[in-house]
Amino acid sequence: MTETVISSASKEIIIGFDRPFTIIGERINPSGRKLLADEMKTGDYSRVAADALAQVAAGAHMLDVNAGIPLADEPRILAEVIELVQGLTDVPLAIDSSIVAALESGLAVYQGKALVNSVTGEEERLESVLPLVKKYGAAVVAISNDETGISEDPDVRFAIAKKIVERAEDHGIPRQDVVVDPLVMPVGAIGQAGRQAMAILRRLREELHVNTTCGASNFSFGLPNRHSLNWSFLAMAIGAGLTSAITNPLHSEEMSAVMGANVVMGHDPHCADWIAKFREATGDGTGGARATSGRRGGRRGRRG
Amino acid sequence: MTETVISSASKEIIIGFDRPFTIIGERINPSGRKLLADEMKTGDYSRVAADALAQVAAGAHMLDVNAGIPLADEPRILAEVIELVQGLTDVPLAIDSSIVAALESGLAVYQGKALVNSVTGEEERLESVLPLVKKYGAAVVAISNDETGISEDPDVRFAIAKKIVERAEDHGIPRQDVVVDPLVMPVGAIGQAGRQAMAILRRLREELHVNTTCGASNFSFGLPNRHSLNWSFLAMAIGAGLTSAITNPLHSEEMSAVMGANVVMGHDPHCADWIAKFREATGDGTGGARATSGRRGGRRGRRG
Repeated sequence: MTETVISSASKEIIIGFDRPFTIIGERINPSGRKLLADEMKTGDYSRVAADALAQVAAGAHMLDVNAGIPLADEPRILAEVIELVQGLTDVPLAIDSSIVAALESGLAVYQGKALVNSVTGEEERLESVLPLVKKYGAAVVAISNDETGISEDPDVRFAIAKKIVERAEDHGIPRQDVVVDPLVMPVGAIGQAGRQAMAILRRLREELHVNTTCGASNFSFGLPNRHSLNWSFLAMAIGAGLTSAITNPLHSEEMSAVMGANVVMGHDPHCADWIAKFREATGDGTGGARATSGRRGGRRGRRG
Repeated sequence: MTETVISSASKEIIIGFDRPFTIIGERINPSGRKLLADEMKTGDYSRVAADALAQVAAGAHMLDVNAGIPLADEPRILAEVIELVQGLTDVPLAIDSSIVAALESGLAVYQGKALVNSVTGEEERLESVLPLVKKYGAAVVAISNDETGISEDPDVRFAIAKKIVERAEDHGIPRQDVVVDPLVMPVGAIGQAGRQAMAILRRLREELHVNTTCGASNFSFGLPNRHSLNWSFLAMAIGAGLTSAITNPLHSEEMSAVMGANVVMGHDPHCADWIAKFREATGDGTGGARATSGRRGGRRGRRG
C-alpha cells in the first residue's frame, strides 16, 4: 500500500492505491497562454491568483505551478508565484520546471513537502534533480523517457521508470516518494496508446508498487469531443492503477470521470461525494452529463 | 481469443476480446413499462417496432427481446415479437425469458444463431435450458447465481460461472458460446460492488476465457446522475474485460463511454468511428459531453 504524502504548511494530501484519486490542477502554466505569460513576465499575478482559487474551488487537491516563459527570469518568477499561491490556498503544490535552478528556487521558498515536477531517466537530469529532491525532502514525478527520447515500447518506458525509482533510492529518496508518469501518447497518432497506457499502469502498480500521474488530456490530442474521450480514458486508467492526474478541474467531464471512478473503486464511502455533488443538479436521478456543469465544490477540503 | 458468434438470417456479429464492444439494446422489455405491457398483451406491437428501429439507429449491435407480462401467453407473444423484429431489422437477437417454454417458442421461430438470455447455476435451470441451447445451436448468457441466491462474495459468483461453463460443455455447448453475466450489484447498497465487478471480470477473462455481459445500469441504481456514473463504470468494466452489455443505446452517455473505451482498447482503428460521430457535433474539438446528444448512428451496420 504505497502512499505518497505531499503537504503545504497546514495541509497534507496522500496519493495512494487505497485513496480517492488525486487531482493536480494544471492551469497555472504559461505554455500556450500568451496573455498569462506576458502578465507573469511583468509581475502581474492576478490571473495566477484567480486560476489558483478557481481550481481549488472546483475540487483540485493540489496545484501544479509552472513559470516557463521564454527569456524570462524563471527562477525568480516561479518562487514569487509559489509564495503567492501558498498565501492564497492551503493545497500542496507541484513545482514544475525543466530548469534545475528554477526547481531549486521554488523549493527554497516552498512551505511543506512539495512534489517536484519532474525528473526524467536522462543521466544529467537524474544527477541534478534527485539531489535537490533529497535535500528538500520532497517527492518527485518520474517521467519515463531518457536520452533516447520517448519509446513507443511500453516495456522500455517501464524499464526507465524502474531505473529512476532505483536511482532515487540510491539518493536516499524512498520509493513511495517517486510518482511515475508513464507518458500517455495521443491515440490519434499512436493507435495502441490506450492499451499501452493500461498495460504500463498495471505493471507500475503491481510490479513496481509506485504511485502514478499523467497529463490525461494528452490522450485525446487532435481529436474531436476531447473531454468525452478523456472521460473514458481517465476512468479506465484509474481502473488500471493510475492514482493522480495533472488535469483541468474546471472541466466537468474529467471531474465526473474521477468522481465516478472513485465510486467504482470503493473510494467514495456510501457514495457520499457523488450524492452531495449531483443530488441537487439532477433531482430525480435521471439527469445526464449536462447537469454536471453545476459544480458545487463538494470535495473541497475533504482530504488530508 | 474467445469469439462468440451470434447471427440473424443475414448478419453476423462477434463478441470478443479483440473486437469493438457489443451493445445489446435493452428496450424491448415490458418490465416496468405498463403501457408497453398492455399493448403487447393485446397484440399491438407498434411500440416494439419503433423501439427496435430506434435502438439500431442509435448503434445497437443486437437487441434483447423480452415478453414477460404477468398472466399473458408469453411463449406466443415472444415468438410473434421475434418474427416482427427480425422482419424489421437484421441485427441478431437475445431471446430473453425466465420461462423455458417461451425460450423454446422463441428459438423455434428465430432465424439465425440466437443468444439465449439466460441460464443460471440452478440445477433445474441448467438441465432445462442447456439442452434447448444445444438443440438450436444457440449461445447462452450464464448468470452467476444459483439456488442459494446471489452471493456477495465474488469468488462464489466466479465459481458458479465456472460450473455453468463446464456443464454447458457437458451438453456439447462450447465455452465460447457461453457469455457470463457476473451480476453487477448496485453500489448504493453494496459499497464494494465496483471493485467486485472489476475483480470478477478480470478472472472471467484471464482464467475462464469467456465473454461477458451485464445489465450495466444496475450499478447506479438509486443514485443521482445515473448516466454519468454508468459512463465511468462501463468504461472501467470494459478495461477489466467486459465484452458486451445489455443497455439503452438511446442514452448518449453510455454510448460515449463505449465509443471512448473502444478507442482506449485500440478497437476503433484510426479513431474512425469516434471522429465520424463527433467531428460535426463539436467543430473544433473542444466541445463537451452535451454535444454527444446529436447522434448520427455512425456505427450502424459496421459490424458483421
